[in-house]
Amino acid sequence: METNRTVLADADVLLRFTAQVLQQLGTSEADAHDMAAQIVGSELAGHESHGMRRLPEYVDRATSGHADPRAEITIEIDTGSLVRVNGNRGFGHLVLRDATRLAVERAKRHGIAGVAVRRSEWAGRFVDFVSWAADRGVATLLFANDSGSGQVVAPPGGVEPRLSTNPIAFGIPRASGPHLVVDMATSAVAMGRVSEWRDRGEQIPDDWAAGGVLQFLGGAKGFGLALVAEALAGALSGAGTVSPDPAHDHQGVFLIAIDVARLRDVDEFATEIDRVAAYVKDVPLAAGVASVRLPGEGSAASAARRRAEGTPIQQFTWDRMAALAERFDIEPVSPVAGS
Amino acid sequence: METNRTVLADADVLLRFTAQVLQQLGTSEADAHDMAAQIVGSELAGHESHGMRRLPEYVDRATSGHADPRAEITIEIDTGSLVRVNGNRGFGHLVLRDATRLAVERAKRHGIAGVAVRRSEWAGRFVDFVSWAADRGVATLLFANDSGSGQVVAPPGGVEPRLSTNPIAFGIPRASGPHLVVDMATSAVAMGRVSEWRDRGEQIPDDWAAGGVLQFLGGAKGFGLALVAEALAGALSGAGTVSPDPAHDHQGVFLIAIDVARLRDVDEFATEIDRVAAYVKDVPLAAGVASVRLPGEGSAASAARRRAEGTPIQQFTWDRMAALAERFDIEPVSPVAGS
Repeated sequence: METNRTVLADADVLLRFTAQVLQQLGTSEADAHDMAAQIVGSELAGHESHGMRRLPEYVDRATSGHADPRAEITIEIDTGSLVRVNGNRGFGHLVLRDATRLAVERAKRHGIAGVAVRRSEWAGRFVDFVSWAADRGVATLLFANDSGSGQVVAPPGGVEPRLSTNPIAFGIPRASGPHLVVDMATSAVAMGRVSEWRDRGEQIPDDWAAGGVLQFLGGAKGFGLALVAEALAGALSGAGTVSPDPAHDHQGVFLIAIDVARLRDVDEFATEIDRVAAYVKDVPLAAGVASVRLPGEGSAASAARRRAEGTPIQQFTWDRMAALAERFDIEPVSPVAGS
Repeated sequence: METNRTVLADADVLLRFTAQVLQQLGTSEADAHDMAAQIVGSELAGHESHGMRRLPEYVDRATSGHADPRAEITIEIDTGSLVRVNGNRGFGHLVLRDATRLAVERAKRHGIAGVAVRRSEWAGRFVDFVSWAADRGVATLLFANDSGSGQVVAPPGGVEPRLSTNPIAFGIPRASGPHLVVDMATSAVAMGRVSEWRDRGEQIPDDWAAGGVLQFLGGAKGFGLALVAEALAGALSGAGTVSPDPAHDHQGVFLIAIDVARLRDVDEFATEIDRVAAYVKDVPLAAGVASVRLPGEGSAASAARRRAEGTPIQQFTWDRMAALAERFDIEPVSPVAGS
């Protein structure tokens, strides 16, 4: 059907276009480039839910004054190994980039560090942050909430939503291949995926969303993980937690960073993770399965393919990009020839 | 059927009996009491899988020389905020009690701390450790593996097991009621539950164990969590990770402790978690559901009931307790009158 039609775009053209749009909002050239790389990276990784389809939302949040495209983080509490920063309503892609840099720097100094973040705009995927830390021999654990808003998931036994999808993420350094990166909603399915399916007019499975309300991953287990994320990212950070009338809808985050080198030689550690990866993948496969995919491997494979062949963009998103090009008087994205 | 018959036991009698058995192995009076309280506590909480049915296993591990009932932990690496301890094959109930004390002490000193543990015997449930920390205003995150052995869970797409159930646990201080404690296998179901069902002769659902092989919680998500646990608890700790020929089968653990007071007033924080709990529970319920239960609440309710009315012990376990009483010449556990 029409809503499912896609047009191929070139990754570098998407990057140029996205960075130009962000600069029109007042974001610096360097920051616009970093944020554009994350957005286009999601598209390349096959996570369209945090890709180009979000750009018009980010523009709206900025032009309405909700987000501040020029914001810089400020440190509110600094105890050395534990720090609280205010994102000052900056784009989450930039706030969490800076919070990750801070966490890695503090982990290198103290061995282990925690950075709490409040008043950040939504950051999209977290894999770029935890991968960046892993590149530096730092293992990370990340917990997020929506400062109490974005209530879309029902507690097990309840029929109305009470929590957001409270995503969590982890990054573990590997010696070769993509790092071991996990980035998951604590709900059975992420909200972005649901929006994506809705745009395509597809049916959402009942065990993921009963009566239109999202369900937790594995019932009580996902519920438990979400409550832990709410406590660390919402309460410990001072970002805010769920209530009948949440104060604002920015993202709260708690990020833990561990300098592997304090406990083990980093190369030895990363090589052991490679060995685990190889052993886990070397398993007899179920019928119809081509290979076992570790977290991060599917995205890396998709990115390599889409970078070479072009990235399929839904018509729905394509039309919105064209509107942004016209609005900001920017050269539009042209389809890859022949697509 | 016969295998499903239970006899009621009194909690204090179980505690006396269990501590006496452990002392016969050479465990000190104080340690035997602490470990017995954890084992009987699991039974009271309704987690029979880590309750009295495990006592004969612990005895066998000790008498075979695999576990050392007199072991004390030794610190192998000490960087202040990151510490590695050797459990020296001591009972996990005691090793992790001591590792938790160390983590809390270091968190109080440094703000955030990590304790890696290798060569611990299996600890059963982790709720006592994370609750103990929560009582002291410390939030905890715990990751465990089996040093590479205990491979019972298949990676998504694979048909043979490659990882253990790699449990994870979290503790968050609350102001009133039981702390927010999560203690979960990363598999769809814990191995202890499977053994429990097997003993009762019950059928195990196919989406939890396909062809006798356990499946991960939510497929890729549980798989990702298990790999993170394998990396932190197995590789970072030096405990060992999965391979075709694992060196030993002790438990590896990585425990993160965060002193809440460094970032927020603890009472304010704990009261906010109470408010979250109340709001999440105050939800319209699905048909047939009496209430939404937060992590930790079901166990607390079960413990209160079983402490008052007696604890149902399966005949299977009862027979094994009688054999232990005879072997060690200890007064056996008598059923509660009339049960």
